Amino acid sequence: MSEPAPSPCQYPDIRRQTVALTDGLSAEDMVAQSMPDASPIKWHLAHTTWFFEQFILKPLLPGYRQFHPQFNALFNSYYQGHGRPFLRAHRGLLTRPSLQQVLDYRAHVDQAMTQTADRFSVPIDFWQTLGLHHEMQHQELMLTDSLHLLWHNPLRPAWRAPRHQAKAKATPLSYHRFEGGLVDIGQPENEGFGFDCERPRHPYHLQPYRLANRPINNGEWLTFIQDGGYQQATLWLSDGWALAQQQHWQAPLYWEQDADGQWQQFTLAGLQPLDLEAPVSHISYFEADAYARWAGGRLPTEQEWEHAAQDQPIKGNFVESGNGLPQASPGKGMQQLFGDVWEWTQSPYVAYPGFRPTAGIAGEYNGKFMSGQYVLRGGSCATPKAQMRLSYRNFFYPHQRWQFSGMRLAKD
Amino acid sequence: MSEPAPSPCQYPDIRRQTVALTDGLSAEDMVAQSMPDASPIKWHLAHTTWFFEQFILKPLLPGYRQFHPQFNALFNSYYQGHGRPFLRAHRGLLTRPSLQQVLDYRAHVDQAMTQTADRFSVPIDFWQTLGLHHEMQHQELMLTDSLHLLWHNPLRPAWRAPRHQAKAKATPLSYHRFEGGLVDIGQPENEGFGFDCERPRHPYHLQPYRLANRPINNGEWLTFIQDGGYQQATLWLSDGWALAQQQHWQAPLYWEQDADGQWQQFTLAGLQPLDLEAPVSHISYFEADAYARWAGGRLPTEQEWEHAAQDQPIKGNFVESGNGLPQASPGKGMQQLFGDVWEWTQSPYVAYPGFRPTAGIAGEYNGKFMSGQYVLRGGSCATPKAQMRLSYRNFFYPHQRWQFSGMRLAKD
Amino acid sequence: MSEPAPSPCQYPDIRRQTVALTDGLSAEDMVAQSMPDASPIKWHLAHTTWFFEQFILKPLLPGYRQFHPQFNALFNSYYQGHGRPFLRAHRGLLTRPSLQQVLDYRAHVDQAMTQTADRFSVPIDFWQTLGLHHEMQHQELMLTDSLHLLWHNPLRPAWRAPRHQAKAKATPLSYHRFEGGLVDIGQPENEGFGFDCERPRHPYHLQPYRLANRPINNGEWLTFIQDGGYQQATLWLSDGWALAQQQHWQAPLYWEQDADGQWQQFTLAGLQPLDLEAPVSHISYFEADAYARWAGGRLPTEQEWEHAAQDQPIKGNFVESGNGLPQASPGKGMQQLFGDVWEWTQSPYVAYPGFRPTAGIAGEYNGKFMSGQYVLRGGSCATPKAQMRLSYRNFFYPHQRWQFSGMRLAKD
Amino acid sequence: MSEPAPSPCQYPDIRRQTVALTDGLSAEDMVAQSMPDASPIKWHLAHTTWFFEQFILKPLLPGYRQFHPQFNALFNSYYQGHGRPFLRAHRGLLTRPSLQQVLDYRAHVDQAMTQTADRFSVPIDFWQTLGLHHEMQHQELMLTDSLHLLWHNPLRPAWRAPRHQAKAKATPLSYHRFEGGLVDIGQPENEGFGFDCERPRHPYHLQPYRLANRPINNGEWLTFIQDGGYQQATLWLSDGWALAQQQHWQAPLYWEQDADGQWQQFTLAGLQPLDLEAPVSHISYFEADAYARWAGGRLPTEQEWEHAAQDQPIKGNFVESGNGLPQASPGKGMQQLFGDVWEWTQSPYVAYPGFRPTAGIAGEYNGKFMSGQYVLRGGSCATPKAQMRLSYRNFFYPHQRWQFSGMRLAKD
Repeated sequence: MSEPAPSPCQYPDIRRQTVALTDGLSAEDMVAQSMPDASPIKWHLAHTTWFFEQFILKPLLPGYRQFHPQFNALFNSYYQGHGRPFLRAHRGLLTRPSLQQVLDYRAHVDQAMTQTADRFSVPIDFWQTLGLHHEMQHQELMLTDSLHLLWHNPLRPAWRAPRHQAKAKATPLSYHRFEGGLVDIGQPENEGFGFDCERPRHPYHLQPYRLANRPINNGEWLTFIQDGGYQQATLWLSDGWALAQQQHWQAPLYWEQDADGQWQQFTLAGLQPLDLEAPVSHISYFEADAYARWAGGRLPTEQEWEHAAQDQPIKGNFVESGNGLPQASPGKGMQQLFGDVWEWTQSPYVAYPGFRPTAGIAGEYNGKFMSGQYVLRGGSCATPKAQMRLSYRNFFYPHQRWQFSGMRLAKD
Repeated sequence: MSEPAPSPCQYPDIRRQTVALTDGLSAEDMVAQSMPDASPIKWHLAHTTWFFEQFILKPLLPGYRQFHPQFNALFNSYYQGHGRPFLRAHRGLLTRPSLQQVLDYRAHVDQAMTQTADRFSVPIDFWQTLGLHHEMQHQELMLTDSLHLLWHNPLRPAWRAPRHQAKAKATPLSYHRFEGGLVDIGQPENEGFGFDCERPRHPYHLQPYRLANRPINNGEWLTFIQDGGYQQATLWLSDGWALAQQQHWQAPLYWEQDADGQWQQFTLAGLQPLDLEAPVSHISYFEADAYARWAGGRLPTEQEWEHAAQDQPIKGNFVESGNGLPQASPGKGMQQLFGDVWEWTQSPYVAYPGFRPTAGIAGEYNGKFMSGQYVLRGGSCATPKAQMRLSYRNFFYPHQRWQFSGMRLAKD
Repeated sequence: MSEPAPSPCQYPDIRRQTVALTDGLSAEDMVAQSMPDASPIKWHLAHTTWFFEQFILKPLLPGYRQFHPQFNALFNSYYQGHGRPFLRAHRGLLTRPSLQQVLDYRAHVDQAMTQTADRFSVPIDFWQTLGLHHEMQHQELMLTDSLHLLWHNPLRPAWRAPRHQAKAKATPLSYHRFEGGLVDIGQPENEGFGFDCERPRHPYHLQPYRLANRPINNGEWLTFIQDGGYQQATLWLSDGWALAQQQHWQAPLYWEQDADGQWQQFTLAGLQPLDLEAPVSHISYFEADAYARWAGGRLPTEQEWEHAAQDQPIKGNFVESGNGLPQASPGKGMQQLFGDVWEWTQSPYVAYPGFRPTAGIAGEYNGKFMSGQYVLRGGSCATPKAQMRLSYRNFFYPHQRWQFSGMRLAKD
Repeated sequence: MSEPAPSPCQYPDIRRQTVALTDGLSAEDMVAQSMPDASPIKWHLAHTTWFFEQFILKPLLPGYRQFHPQFNALFNSYYQGHGRPFLRAHRGLLTRPSLQQVLDYRAHVDQAMTQTADRFSVPIDFWQTLGLHHEMQHQELMLTDSLHLLWHNPLRPAWRAPRHQAKAKATPLSYHRFEGGLVDIGQPENEGFGFDCERPRHPYHLQPYRLANRPINNGEWLTFIQDGGYQQATLWLSDGWALAQQQHWQAPLYWEQDADGQWQQFTLAGLQPLDLEAPVSHISYFEADAYARWAGGRLPTEQEWEHAAQDQPIKGNFVESGNGLPQASPGKGMQQLFGDVWEWTQSPYVAYPGFRPTAGIAGEYNGKFMSGQYVLRGGSCATPKAQMRLSYRNFFYPHQRWQFSGMRLAKD
């Protein structure tokens, strides 16, 4: 059962949470961009604000005065229907507007968004909820993008103090069997918020399958490394092998061996000893797929994952836990389907049968990205809990590694 | 019902046909490579021969003397398990061995392959059939690769004389409705040859759908162009739009407008007036997808296509017709599912549930390419008829255009 | 006669001037890097400080405590003999240390550098003077790098208020004739400071030549544009033409035409109407060379320039004038050899006969850049006056345009 | 004293020699192109023919019938004034016209070129001589381009049988001192043929210098390798070091170590044991410069080289010796200034004072390449002797290694 979507009355909290997340970062930290895939924090703060201004305030609030005539050009991410977006790779060059001006922009829009409902020309509930989900997606990116930025700095700066806590031991790996058959997949039409790509709910036929009780952990990944997993071409997809060679992949992103051969992992708390029990993260689809082949299994399809998770409660190690790191779970039964790490599925991100993009101005939100990417499920330690749903489909390219992406094995 | 696979006794004919296809090409024509995706004809002649030598003669024919100790290194395409293949992008630099030496290589292997069955250590029927299907795949590539090569030459050379024939008028576009439901997809286990990726046969649930009675033709594509289809970002997938801009796509590959604004198409018979009635070909997945959105439809899934084609006879405009060009069909009912143009489906090329790669030495044949590509169905005017099956899954990257690739519309 | 070099007693002034230059920039402005050729302002502030610490304080001040153990790795520009420098293209990712920490670093080093002379193990006068000249070179880069950064911002931000001043009219273009013969080129050994590449002074034989009385101005460049200068391949060097096509050059960097066809120029004071009388700037060597061919002249050699300038006073529109823009000079005689714009010469930047790199730790300062670059002479409106000498050789690659680079015609 | 230029009456011999050089190559060998810098042999055969047709026959032979209307587009190398040249990187795709058609083209043009002088509208002596020098330049490229092509082939094919000959021992390395002073450089105006870039002859002031008596040989280069020359950044120019790292240079092009650690060199006669006494060849400028720094010397300027060579006879190991390899010389005095290997000088390829490009249609021959390249002097074992002159300036980019390029040391 999916969580209730955030209602519009959560607007102030979610918006405030976005800014609260930046605690510990300076204005300087928030201007830089480490790669075109990532964005500066200041840009995230402005872009999420632009979303409300452009999709709600300008068209639906009579008399709304836009904050700045050029902010649409600066903070439109990729909506070709809203003018030509600013070159993505140059977002880190926007030293102006200043952080303070962006915070003023947020205040200006927040003030307008919290007008009473009758001031708007039509009900805005759907759009406001969409905007809040959009905002939460960017909250997660703010963490992953900052991690990626700080990692480039030889000072190995920590954003936050590490949490000293008793490390749990991971439950032993086992498989649960599912009978499959004709199951329903996707978000029902009238059951709370869902992105257009999660719908329509539709029947899907599953063969019987088994799914591991927990994600693969760092210790297991180390065995893969030590067994030469990164050196055996026949374990890999052809495109994955070519890329791994070209980029000299030898371990997950953020892993490094110190002079004594001890493995460490760069985290939001700086360089930390690798926790062998915790789920592996920051792996690409190509690595996940190679690991599965090496381990004699395969990645699950997104339908298998959704079917297996349908009766699980949506709780886990989300951003609210404050860990900022995946951690082991000692529990019984299916563990950690939600939270900790996004789980790569073997399913390319494609339209469900009967897919219709959101009508009108947000029609470019999801559909135009349906090529070349894979679906990940379940959320991570950087995901706001309110964002998560059983039917939530995250998607990334198979080479991308800067998200908290991990894997769970399946077998026929 | 799928065609019977070529039996091993067809070995001499199919092998001979490969060489016969080169009629009209010089040794010089056969050495050049126009891009890494394409290969020189001489390389195709040698590589298909290497396949029999490496997969059958060396392991299974006692006393077999290999033709040349280094030909494995030269003519292994991508089998990492058989040593490090020669750099693909450099195949056009192999001026040695000469064409004559490659023909001698073919004769040497053919002589060994046609030994009586008891000379081999185990039955070779499966491997020989696999090798013949492999050979036919390369027969098609020889046509498409040569076309691509000759197109780069400002002399606009014709490989063959054009066929002057009465041009048919395409039947009007209409849609057939299919009820869907739980259908079986894929090649049954014991019903003739099929590649590993076509199996196992499995149930698949289809929503009701409609499928066009014929492929989109050049005249319809021209309307798309004239309506600004190549200029409207919102018609395109995000990756497709970026690529179309970068590569300045304004029409299918091989189309060009002469000084008078008349459209022509470069063909195996040189530059010819564009036949508006014939199926459009040499379009990328990205273009096909954009056209479908513009036309208010979508591309079919491969399961929809296979279900719709299951009762159709496997006949059509294949390579044996000698046209070397798609042509219009005036018939009634579902037309041209087979032959003329490969039809892009919206289905990424992924494993069927329960997929197992061919055991042993040919395990790299298909499975390792299951990322980033899309399935095309039905064969083209360059495909040998004996290669075609209902369940045949061709696959290419969404940007590739040098095959005879076209499209058919579907609707919910 | 060259200006006296800054003496060590100018250390506090020159160091203070570096920070004073940043007036009007925020900490955010100082962290970003617009291209690998340019550096963030914060990096300039730190690197110039590192120079004194690494070349003087660490080796020569007994008991000196380095400010931070990793700053050598971060702020070493390109001295391979001092450890592996941080990747140049990633300087804009150094959000830490903060601007404040860098200012503290400057204070720490300044305090140590201003110890009395007897605290150092050897006299440091030469190294201190070298460091101050190095500092002034970076002062100029701070202006040109910031201009380049701000130009990428669609807000077209101004760093400084524009100076409203009476625009002068350029003196008519004419040529002065020089007889040439055997002349002396380069900085004498014992006559004040000079970089190693300016020495040794040596005889050089010049043919008679003529040199224009002033640089080419924007109005003359506009005529070149209007005459199709950017469209005629035969006016250009082969490499220049290829680059101009690839990068779509149609005018100097920072020029743009508004909707009414009026030309404007992006400056440190934002977008300003183009001053037709002022020297053209932000042109590449390739453009300067093409202009010269179009105009029936040629670029001067650096020896011709130095010989012609030898009796000229070193005064002109330097950074101290506060214009931040080249401006026309109405005067008589040879005008503007110094200041306004660096003048491209046709001389590749190579070693003078008998060249010896500075001994020891600064040996990589100049010599290793002696390939592929051209000499520019005379300084610009962004150059500190105290940095300029008759023999000063600036050098850039022929494609680079972000400096205040202009040109003066010569003829045989 | 420079050799007399080939007179027009040598036309038949030189043209015949071009075709004779291809002995041992097949039509297949002649179509391929190993990199954009190199060209297919068939293209060389056609382009040299086009030169006579385009520059002499079309404008100056009334009634001349051109061989093919499109050959100007195909075989124009880089003359923008003669239409848009065919894309250089695609020359290897010109499988048509066939080799036989190109030989017919040669015969057609040769027949026209050998008309009596009065058939031409003006005297063609100068142009014919220019064309013959051009032809000889391409003769050399045919050898170096073929060597580069065959080297890519894992079969390591030999073009020619190796010459088994007594290997000479190199004379010990010593230095000759030259007093310099004001010397004359360049080809006198009325003393036989010279390219425009060799003129005008002009006075040049040289400091005293010393020049090695012979080129550096392979044994000396091996010592450089063994001393870590390819690993020490401070020996290299900045651009050279970056390139050497990126391309993993560890030895000259064509050197390879066999399994036993023995060095071999790929040659026109296939893979051969490295001759330690022979001059090193196939080194880039960057490598030559690094070697010189390591050895405590420097490269000579082209003026030093020309002055030192002015009284030397133009004889040596040219292409006519049939070696196709540099070889040691045991003689006394200045050795091997001519032949064996082109010697990199430290002089960028720039215009001499007063340079004027050849008037009219061949004005693009040399001048437009005067940026980014360095002068090499003296000719190589692949150079036709008749092409060589004291004043001959060859030029290549500092990264290029596929010519027979070597080096000689100089000292102040």
